[in-house]
Amino acid sequence: MTTNTIAAPWDGLLTDCRLATMREGSAALGAITDAALGWKDGRIVFADRMDALPAAAERLCREPESMAGAWITPGLVDCHTHLVFGGNRAGEFDQRLNGVSYEDIARAGGGIASTVKATRALDEDALLAASLPRASALLADGATTIEIKSGYGLDLDSELKMLRVARRIGSQLGIGVRTTFLGAHALPPEFRDRQGDYVDHVCTMMLPAIARSGLADAVDAFCEKIAFTPAETRRVFSTAREYGLPVKLHADQLSDLAGAALSAEFGGLSADHIEHTSLEGVRAMAAAGTVAVLLPGAFYALRDTQLPPIPALREHAVPMAVATDLNPGTSPLLSLRLAMNLACTLFRLTPEEALRGATVHAARALGLADRGALEIGRRADFVVWNIEDPVDLCYWIGGSLARRVVAGGVRLLG
Amino acid sequence: MTTNTIAAPWDGLLTDCRLATMREGSAALGAITDAALGWKDGRIVFADRMDALPAAAERLCREPESMAGAWITPGLVDCHTHLVFGGNRAGEFDQRLNGVSYEDIARAGGGIASTVKATRALDEDALLAASLPRASALLADGATTIEIKSGYGLDLDSELKMLRVARRIGSQLGIGVRTTFLGAHALPPEFRDRQGDYVDHVCTMMLPAIARSGLADAVDAFCEKIAFTPAETRRVFSTAREYGLPVKLHADQLSDLAGAALSAEFGGLSADHIEHTSLEGVRAMAAAGTVAVLLPGAFYALRDTQLPPIPALREHAVPMAVATDLNPGTSPLLSLRLAMNLACTLFRLTPEEALRGATVHAARALGLADRGALEIGRRADFVVWNIEDPVDLCYWIGGSLARRVVAGGVRLLG
Ligand SMILES: [Zn+2]
Ligand SMILES: [Zn+2]
Repeated sequence: MTTNTIAAPWDGLLTDCRLATMREGSAALGAITDAALGWKDGRIVFADRMDALPAAAERLCREPESMAGAWITPGLVDCHTHLVFGGNRAGEFDQRLNGVSYEDIARAGGGIASTVKATRALDEDALLAASLPRASALLADGATTIEIKSGYGLDLDSELKMLRVARRIGSQLGIGVRTTFLGAHALPPEFRDRQGDYVDHVCTMMLPAIARSGLADAVDAFCEKIAFTPAETRRVFSTAREYGLPVKLHADQLSDLAGAALSAEFGGLSADHIEHTSLEGVRAMAAAGTVAVLLPGAFYALRDTQLPPIPALREHAVPMAVATDLNPGTSPLLSLRLAMNLACTLFRLTPEEALRGATVHAARALGLADRGALEIGRRADFVVWNIEDPVDLCYWIGGSLARRVVAGGVRLLG
Repeated sequence: MTTNTIAAPWDGLLTDCRLATMREGSAALGAITDAALGWKDGRIVFADRMDALPAAAERLCREPESMAGAWITPGLVDCHTHLVFGGNRAGEFDQRLNGVSYEDIARAGGGIASTVKATRALDEDALLAASLPRASALLADGATTIEIKSGYGLDLDSELKMLRVARRIGSQLGIGVRTTFLGAHALPPEFRDRQGDYVDHVCTMMLPAIARSGLADAVDAFCEKIAFTPAETRRVFSTAREYGLPVKLHADQLSDLAGAALSAEFGGLSADHIEHTSLEGVRAMAAAGTVAVLLPGAFYALRDTQLPPIPALREHAVPMAVATDLNPGTSPLLSLRLAMNLACTLFRLTPEEALRGATVHAARALGLADRGALEIGRRADFVVWNIEDPVDLCYWIGGSLARRVVAGGVRLLG
């Protein structure tokens, strides 16, 4: 601890707690027992054993609070969501289970087209009202930072509306929100049979305006046989680079188009899904420092059987993040803890991998070095849990385990 | 509506709501729109279209409340849980994901033996304190009736302790609890290599005392190669019959021992799991009116691939219930709604089947004709939801959708 951190009284001090700091080191999860956590001005100023507290610690904080041994983790980080949208697709879920084919649903205007229609139809306030409960559900389960993508507007005004709603969710709930422009998500009806023209439109008209607006922190695309080609994706990424926006990619979910390598080539923050990514793709990610974002919610809901290349990711030390992919079509998943359980159960991640994947690695997937771990100088984003061991967060399926959620030193829940 | 239901003022009346009554009929889910729900003395006295309300309806209830179109379902019924236990098995979950074999875990005293040890070690109050949050989690997601099994005590005192805790959960939370004696769950350490003696002990010593105590509403057994044989199960069931206790069975989960047919033979309330049940078993259930209790949480957590014989159950009109199987080893599942989503996703139940399975069919699996549907004379157990359609309850994975939970006319939540 440096002296300047104790120069003035702290804003908060929790004593007698156990910290899963997520720092690298010998202890699993960087755990520290008999610990204390102090913060000031929204940043952590102490996260260590209690016996390392300065002698005059009681004077450092007006109201230190004993936590009776409770476990504290960093606030969870959901690094891949599409939670701003109008309508939902429960009707299609029902139809499919009653035997209606995907093709018939699409022919009737279903699928992503129905979400685009419903999202365009809502004004900004109505879209916020529809989306806020989903963000609140993530927060209630411990998420203090959420990534939110556009991509259901597919015209400039509607995409800007989605991004503004995303920002408003952050300020309204007091959580961190990172926004991503996903104009290259699907082909809007106006451009039917003119995919090249739409990509042109995204690159020459939408992206410049989005960049000017300051509403997007990154740019994403859906690179897939049923969506945009690697060449089209490359063009979107090149344009993003011109505007200084980092990229990430929906890559290799349904087939291997070398999407992960493409993201890595552009120094991508992450490559997401990656069920079909090859060893070359994994090597490229490792070399570029691109995070592997695993999305077991979609894998589960689609009853996919192709597992992402987890052993290769481990072998090449590619950081793995876990996210909800919260979206109305393929992952109506309202809990990052559930995504962690799905990652353990279906992908055989260890609980430690899932926990790092929903904290420190997820923060890295968003390019955020200021959170995801309990460490001096990082944001005071943390969760106090009703658990006996951090593994419980992956083990229990459902339930409400968060006792208190704090973001930037501000108590949001409990 | 009979005249006596309007003879005295009602205790509550919700107007302008939509009811998924679960009654049989032409409408999906027995749905009634533009509806009202009235109750008195804990029972439903009106559940029909608003225009069928008596002319003087406003005088029937002091404070009728408009619900602005909200959907109401019967209170959910979780008809198969093991939620009273000490400790948990998150450590084993962690070990298995780190490559430790089941055999090594069992050799080290893990598996069900560790739960028996932890459950025996807690006194009644401590066991209640450990178990109550799990029942509360089910309640928070809409369950107003819960079945709870013993079976982690495996000696008379510990089994009675578990059953008393189950009853106390009911009275403490204000929900319905049905208790089941599951002495034939596993072989306790005292009877190692003497399974016949233990069955003898269950039938001649434990069951008579359990019956005398009045603490058990039914008797269950685990009929499986790794547990009790059909012959041993038959002996337990015969004894239960002598004491007038209805039976149900953990049947055909891992192999086909004709367990479902055995349950049916004894007029069993239900046969549960039934992944390996044959067509003959299904026929026997249909003939006996035995409910098929599907437990997709265990199927998911064990990564089972053998599906229960759903098409045959449909064809023979065997009522299908859906339950959590909440237990520390194979289904640490704290939400019946999640079990419904799992049943749709993994077992391909339709949302209507899952919804009936968690209400009216689950009530039948417990032998309870007084709940599970919104119908005059049944208990005023219901949930007001924050949803647009009942399908949403199966579609969303996680989240908190219950706006208000009422059991016996008493508001427990919201
Ligand atoms: Zn996505
Ligand atoms: Zn069971």
